[in-house]
Amino acid sequence: MRRMLISDVVLNGHRTDVAIAGNRFESIGRQSGASFDSVIHCRGRMAIVPPFYNTHTHAAMTLLRGYADDVELSEWLTGHIWPAEAQLTPEDIYAGSRVAILEMIKSGTVFFNDMYWDQPATAQAAAEMGVRAAIGLLYLSGDEGQTNPRSRRSNAELLELAPDLPDRIQITEAPHSVYTVPEAGLRAAAESASQTGRILHIHVSETRQENADCIARTGRSPVAYLNDLGLIGPNSILAHCVHLSDDDRRILAEHDAVVAHLPASNMKLCSGQFDHAAARAAGLHLTLGTDGAASNNSLSMLTEMKLASLSAKIRSGSPTEARDHDVFEMATAAGARAFGIDAGRIAEGLLADALLIDLDQPGLIADHNLESNLVYAADSSVIHTVICDGRVLMADRRVPGEDEILEQGRAAAARVRART
Amino acid sequence: MRRMLISDVVLNGHRTDVAIAGNRFESIGRQSGASFDSVIHCRGRMAIVPPFYNTHTHAAMTLLRGYADDVELSEWLTGHIWPAEAQLTPEDIYAGSRVAILEMIKSGTVFFNDMYWDQPATAQAAAEMGVRAAIGLLYLSGDEGQTNPRSRRSNAELLELAPDLPDRIQITEAPHSVYTVPEAGLRAAAESASQTGRILHIHVSETRQENADCIARTGRSPVAYLNDLGLIGPNSILAHCVHLSDDDRRILAEHDAVVAHLPASNMKLCSGQFDHAAARAAGLHLTLGTDGAASNNSLSMLTEMKLASLSAKIRSGSPTEARDHDVFEMATAAGARAFGIDAGRIAEGLLADALLIDLDQPGLIADHNLESNLVYAADSSVIHTVICDGRVLMADRRVPGEDEILEQGRAAAARVRART
Repeated sequence: MRRMLISDVVLNGHRTDVAIAGNRFESIGRQSGASFDSVIHCRGRMAIVPPFYNTHTHAAMTLLRGYADDVELSEWLTGHIWPAEAQLTPEDIYAGSRVAILEMIKSGTVFFNDMYWDQPATAQAAAEMGVRAAIGLLYLSGDEGQTNPRSRRSNAELLELAPDLPDRIQITEAPHSVYTVPEAGLRAAAESASQTGRILHIHVSETRQENADCIARTGRSPVAYLNDLGLIGPNSILAHCVHLSDDDRRILAEHDAVVAHLPASNMKLCSGQFDHAAARAAGLHLTLGTDGAASNNSLSMLTEMKLASLSAKIRSGSPTEARDHDVFEMATAAGARAFGIDAGRIAEGLLADALLIDLDQPGLIADHNLESNLVYAADSSVIHTVICDGRVLMADRRVPGEDEILEQGRAAAARVRART
Repeated sequence: MRRMLISDVVLNGHRTDVAIAGNRFESIGRQSGASFDSVIHCRGRMAIVPPFYNTHTHAAMTLLRGYADDVELSEWLTGHIWPAEAQLTPEDIYAGSRVAILEMIKSGTVFFNDMYWDQPATAQAAAEMGVRAAIGLLYLSGDEGQTNPRSRRSNAELLELAPDLPDRIQITEAPHSVYTVPEAGLRAAAESASQTGRILHIHVSETRQENADCIARTGRSPVAYLNDLGLIGPNSILAHCVHLSDDDRRILAEHDAVVAHLPASNMKLCSGQFDHAAARAAGLHLTLGTDGAASNNSLSMLTEMKLASLSAKIRSGSPTEARDHDVFEMATAAGARAFGIDAGRIAEGLLADALLIDLDQPGLIADHNLESNLVYAADSSVIHTVICDGRVLMADRRVPGEDEILEQGRAAAARVRART
């Protein structure tokens, strides 16, 4: 088993050594004379912290970054995003996913939970680039009121590929939403999740319109409706949750369901401001995500942490809401836990996912409080090294193969423009 | 006169050459055979855009970054910030200002408008590091109801230093606010600004409490009161302006006064959300600032642009509010114009302030819209080179002397901790 030493690194304010064996942290504490296959010398100038777990995105949408901004949601979807998406090829989606994963690695993210088409392309990109991922079997109604042909085909391809994927890649059941999947599809997703143990991933209560339509059609809020259909449980990842009632929050708390909070996207598309204070008071399992690059438009969890805190403060009227430590937990340990990933802290025995933070950056001085600096002050330039599953994915801000990834991403973006 | 060529650079989507002579852009267009003292070869992989002008900060407060977060405003000020500030020495303020300027350069800012004590230390740091700055003569009441001894002493020192400062550094009149400066002090600042032509810089309507107290004491809002005292005009920079009435906005519009919008600080301290839509509708001259690192806690105008747009969208309920282009203008040309700096665009004859953007970064792909990518997706890692007043302040992300600046900043932060 390969052993790696992270030597003289700052952990929780103290200098120590961190040893990794295989894909887990083996020991924390000063090492002497032990033999390692590789050593990263930090010389007290780097800190080790957990990396980020992005609990909701659409990776390949990097191809639509900046494609349509500052327009109304309906125009954004029907006039811009959907027509462009309809023409994306698996080659495009592979290229877009690789750009996304590169951006994520460079900003300290080692896991993303994805919902999109042509999923084998995204799964392949994640497998090759060394990150963790959860890739959804997409349920989306076609004209015939059941899963549409494109989803059916790419779901089948994903299931075919699944046995060849590394353990870091998991498959989820991903019904898109209550407004795009008929009741039979939602029930089928719940049943499949129950039988397979897969996580269930769905958009919930993103907009007021979604809630109003669901109440008019079913007599219940999206959360209550999904709960009645068996889709709310500890393995449910519910993206957005902007418009929750007290009853909705009670249901989510009772079932220990997971909220993927997406502050930038909710603000940019004016879906609304997530009620962080109420969610916290209800004891909800809160995690953080970026949504796709067409609606954020960044995949940086660093920026997302700051937005989560600032939007929670202004929404609640209290600067004590969404404290730095709580937001950092949301973006790290809480996200890992939601997906059953035995990581999210730097501790012996856990999976070896970590960031090495370059402390010689102006945004980290004063150095009174590293967690505060990471939540409120830092950007990706402070991230020196990224480790996932015991492997170094980025060292000194370089990711192997990045030039080719960017070149192919640019080519795919040019194809998107050429079609419109 | 020194001539510099920026060769094969992307300007507004097209590849061209940009020539700089002395401290101004000399020509834009392909060059052949001309002789230059230096050439930056971009090979079509870098874009040139204007840099950022930060219209309100307290640079030295980098020393208090992360010192007290997530607490109520009154506790933050009286329990943490003011006691720590009272003990800062000129040496501390020089060290903190240098960290701030380094952070600003690395995130593409070439100008900051500052209000603090011991201003010669900050002015000296800006002069040495090559940025532009506006440094305020601070009016702050002492126990005796007039400018306090510390301000008086450091104002005198600043005026003594002023003749030796480069043209890039201007002096402003900086009465702190209506709640900390008595009427005689406010009138004195207005008179001095009028006689000298200096810009007048003041905090206005940051909190509801400030407004309520001012109305109770003077019968007028802070804006109306300041207008009656002669402090509202085209040379007035009004920081915050969170709680403006329609009448206030009319006064500011009539006098062409400048608003320094500070979205992060206003959100983090829960001062309120600036009404961007109303300000725009009133035709106000809007600029952007970060405030100090104790209340933001970043000095990156990139993050600030995203926050300005997202908070305006959610405040107004319209995703069409605060479009990318408008926010980019606020952060660049509008800020330069407010301070009479003949810059803020890449155009022949203007002062040569510019950023070279490294297009080989994942956050800039897809490359459909560079302005959108800079406002919504980029962080400081995309900024390759910073030019101010015709001089290269950062090349390939390295600023000369940065290691020593960081070391001295850390030492000053340790002194702050040791005193408490």
